[in-house]
Amino acid sequence: METRLHLRLYFGDIPFGPGKAELLRQIAAQGSIAAAGRAMGMSYKRAWDLVEEMNALFAAPLVTTERGGASKGGAKVTEAGQAVLAHYTALMALVAGQGAGHLQAISGLLKPDAASNP
Amino acid sequence: METRLHLRLYFGDIPFGPGKAELLRQIAAQGSIAAAGRAMGMSYKRAWDLVEEMNALFAAPLVTTERGGASKGGAKVTEAGQAVLAHYTALMALVAGQGAGHLQAISGLLKPDAASNP
Repeated sequence: METRLHLRLYFGDIPFGPGKAELLRQIAAQGSIAAAGRAMGMSYKRAWDLVEEMNALFAAPLVTTERGGASKGGAKVTEAGQAVLAHYTALMALVAGQGAGHLQAISGLLKPDAASNP
Repeated sequence: METRLHLRLYFGDIPFGPGKAELLRQIAAQGSIAAAGRAMGMSYKRAWDLVEEMNALFAAPLVTTERGGASKGGAKVTEAGQAVLAHYTALMALVAGQGAGHLQAISGLLKPDAASNP
């Protein structure tokens, strides 16, 4: 059985967790909200809703879109978006790194058959 | 706006996060699954289902119940349960402690009005 770790921040009732972090990564990689959503098996509307939810939380938008011209439909992750993603990724790395002993200790208490079947 | 942190482990599809951790704490404090559930605004069935889900994951049960006698209905968190809870709590403390700079950096990017209203 695979042991995975989810880290989710809540700003009031609004979560920022693995899904939004991956969406930011995909937007940065694909240059488009639609393509990012597709890569994650998510509808365009859903991807847009998540982007708008993130943008509404922060002083500067995390994702900006370009309208018109050759780059119509393009989107990019702003400096603020890159910063939020970097800090979130660092928190995950902290838990996976320095928390490894605790994670292994918990995994070591799982049922042996459960732990050995991914 | 309050910033909170949720850390959730997944063993396959089964989560262990803030809710189950708090349930273990409440069972240890109350000595009863029913009382622990009540303290969390959770039905007895829901509390029992969560306990059974946890117990099924681990080699040793995290919670044991006593049947009959003066302690009828009593429950306690086992050594394994205390260990799982301690390691989970240590992971949370790691993020809140050594991750404080990252959390503050993210919070510092929130909208000022959003960040100042709890």
